[in-house]
Amino acid sequence: MSDGLEDVVAADTVLSEVDGKAGHLIIRGRTLDELAGRTSFEDLVQLLFQGFFEDLPTQIGPALGAARAEVFAEVSALDTGLLDRTPIEAMRALTARLADGDDLEVALRLTAAPAVFTAAVVRSQAGEAPVAPDPTLSHAADILRMIKGRVPTQSEATALDTYLVTVSDHGLNASTFAARVIASTQSDLYGALAGAIASLKGTLHGGANEAVMAMLLEAGTEAGLETLMRTKLAARERIMGFGHRVYMHKPDPRAMLMKEALERLTKEKSELQLFKLCETGERFMKQEKGLYPNLDYYAAPVFYLLGIPIPLFTPVFLAARTAGISAHVMEQHAHNRLFRPRVLYKGPRNLHPPEKH
Amino acid sequence: MSDGLEDVVAADTVLSEVDGKAGHLIIRGRTLDELAGRTSFEDLVQLLFQGFFEDLPTQIGPALGAARAEVFAEVSALDTGLLDRTPIEAMRALTARLADGDDLEVALRLTAAPAVFTAAVVRSQAGEAPVAPDPTLSHAADILRMIKGRVPTQSEATALDTYLVTVSDHGLNASTFAARVIASTQSDLYGALAGAIASLKGTLHGGANEAVMAMLLEAGTEAGLETLMRTKLAARERIMGFGHRVYMHKPDPRAMLMKEALERLTKEKSELQLFKLCETGERFMKQEKGLYPNLDYYAAPVFYLLGIPIPLFTPVFLAARTAGISAHVMEQHAHNRLFRPRVLYKGPRNLHPPEKH
Repeated sequence: MSDGLEDVVAADTVLSEVDGKAGHLIIRGRTLDELAGRTSFEDLVQLLFQGFFEDLPTQIGPALGAARAEVFAEVSALDTGLLDRTPIEAMRALTARLADGDDLEVALRLTAAPAVFTAAVVRSQAGEAPVAPDPTLSHAADILRMIKGRVPTQSEATALDTYLVTVSDHGLNASTFAARVIASTQSDLYGALAGAIASLKGTLHGGANEAVMAMLLEAGTEAGLETLMRTKLAARERIMGFGHRVYMHKPDPRAMLMKEALERLTKEKSELQLFKLCETGERFMKQEKGLYPNLDYYAAPVFYLLGIPIPLFTPVFLAARTAGISAHVMEQHAHNRLFRPRVLYKGPRNLHPPEKH
Repeated sequence: MSDGLEDVVAADTVLSEVDGKAGHLIIRGRTLDELAGRTSFEDLVQLLFQGFFEDLPTQIGPALGAARAEVFAEVSALDTGLLDRTPIEAMRALTARLADGDDLEVALRLTAAPAVFTAAVVRSQAGEAPVAPDPTLSHAADILRMIKGRVPTQSEATALDTYLVTVSDHGLNASTFAARVIASTQSDLYGALAGAIASLKGTLHGGANEAVMAMLLEAGTEAGLETLMRTKLAARERIMGFGHRVYMHKPDPRAMLMKEALERLTKEKSELQLFKLCETGERFMKQEKGLYPNLDYYAAPVFYLLGIPIPLFTPVFLAARTAGISAHVMEQHAHNRLFRPRVLYKGPRNLHPPEKH
C-alpha cells in the first residue's frame, strides 16, 4: 500500500507542477517566481481558467468584481444565526446559495465568496456594519477594504495580491484532490468545492497559518521563540509552519516569496522586529531539525500586518485557492475517469453473522 | 499514471473486502450472502461501528430510532424554501444542522437523516403533512412508514432491510473515498460526509438507480425493453444498470440479492411481469455485451414496488451508505495519513508572465 497515496500519480494536469526536488512551482508554464509580483490575481485566474470556459472575458477583473457584488447581496440576505458560526462553517452554508448558473459564473462567485462572506461575518461579530464590495478595485485591494473598512495602501494591496497569486494553485493538495475525487462522479463545481471547503476545516490542511501566528504572538521575542520552540521539540509537539511533504530538501518557493513580502511590509510599517523574529525561528529550525519554513510560516505574519483577523486566515487562503480548485474541477470534467482505488482488507475472515437481538 | 487510481491500494481497512474476481463482498469477516436477510440494518451498523466508539450501545436500534426523532425535529424547524430544492441539495443544507455532538451521535444522526429528511420533502411536495418517525419500529419499516404514511407489510420491510444491509459498505467507492480524503485532513465526520453527499450528486455514482427505473418504465414490455436496449447500443449510449469496474467477470453479489428480493416481492404483489421484464434485460445484455447487471439494476424495481418515489432512490441509498462511510471516516481518523498524491504536469514550460492589462 502507498500510505496517503504518496508518490502515486493520480491525474494528468496542464495547470501546475510542483517540483519539490528543484524547489520550483510552475503554473501553466510560468515559474511562480516570475508570476508573483508581476501578475495580478485577476490575470492569474484568467490564466488558470483558460481553455475551460468558452465565454471567458479577456479582462476578468470586472467579472470578478461583479461576482463580489452578487455574493454580498446573498450575504445581506442571510439569516443572522449563520453569522454566529465559525467562518468556515458559515461559508459552507453560503455556498449552497451560490450554486446556480453556468460553470464560469459559479467559479467566479465561489472565488469571490470566501473573502466577501468572511469579511462580513467578522465585521458583524465586532458589531460593525459589513462593507459592500467596490467592483472597480482590484480583488486584493477590495478584500482588505471589506475587512478593514478603508482602502488599503498600494503596498498592502500588493502584498495580498502576491499572496493570492502565490497560493492560487498547488498540484493535488488535499482540498484540490478532494474536489477532483468528487468531480470525477460528474458532480458539479459547487458540490466539488463544498467538499474542498470541508477538507479545509481539518487542522492538517487549513488552519496551519492560524497556529503559526498564535505561536509567534505567544513567543513575543526572539529569545522567547527559541525557548518556545525548544520546549515544543522536547515535548515532541509538532511545530506548525515547518516542513512540507513535497518540499523536503529545498525551501518552499512560496515561503520565500512571502518572506520577501514580509520584509517589504515590515520595513514600511516599521515592524522590522517581527521580520527578525520570524528569521530567528527559521534559523533555529534549520539548525535543530534541518527543516525549511513552509508557506504558512511567512504568510501568517503578512496577514497579521495587513490587519486580517486570525479567524480569517483560512478563508483568505480559500479565496485564492478556489481559483485553482475550480480549474482542476474543469480539467477533471474535461478528461474524466471516476476515481475508484482499492482498499487492502486486513480484517477477519470466515466469521458468521451475529446473533439476532 | 494509474487512470482513476484503478488497482491502486489507497488505504487498509478492516471494514469490507470487495473481491471482484470471486464475486464476493465480505463485511467485517462475514460474507454479504450470509448477512443479508439474516441480519438487520441495526445489527449491521453495530458491526460496522464496532471498535470505533467506546460508548456504542449493544442494541443500536433504540439509539437509531432516537436519532430519527432528533432529525425530524430539525426538519420541522427548517424554513420551507429549502423544501423546494431537490432532495440531495436540501440534504446538504440539512447536514449543517446535524453537526453538533460527539462522533457517535453525529454518525447516528447522519445515518438517520437522509431517509427522515427526504421523506418529509417528498410528502411536502405532494401537499401532504410529513410523518414523524416511530422510534420503536425497525429502521427499514420506519423509513417506508415515513414515506408512505402507513406501516409497511413484513415483506416490504424485509425487502428494504435487505437492501440497506446490502449497500451499507462497499470498499473505496467514490463517496467513501471522497470522505476518507477529506477526513485525512483531520476534518470532522460531518465535513467528510458533506463531501460524500456532494459526490452522490454525480451521475456516475448516485443517480444510476433512477436512470434504470426510467428505462424500465419507458420500455414497458419485454419486447419494448429489447428494442430500447438495441437502439441505445446502436447509438453507443450507455445503458445504466450493467457492468461494474470491480465485478467484471462475475455477477455483482449485491445485484443477485436484490434480484431474489425482487422475485419475492413481485410474487407477493402479483407483479411478476416486472420481474420477467428485468430478467429479459439481464439476458439480453449478457448475450449482446457479456455484461452482468449491477446493484442498481435490481434495486431500482425493488424501490419502485416498495412505493419509494424515484427522486428518493439516491437518498435511500445514502441512508444505508452513510453507515459505512461513517465507519470509514472513523477508521481514517484512527490511523491517519494525509492523502497527498501527485499530478503529472503535461502543460507547457519556459513561458513568461502574460502582459499586464
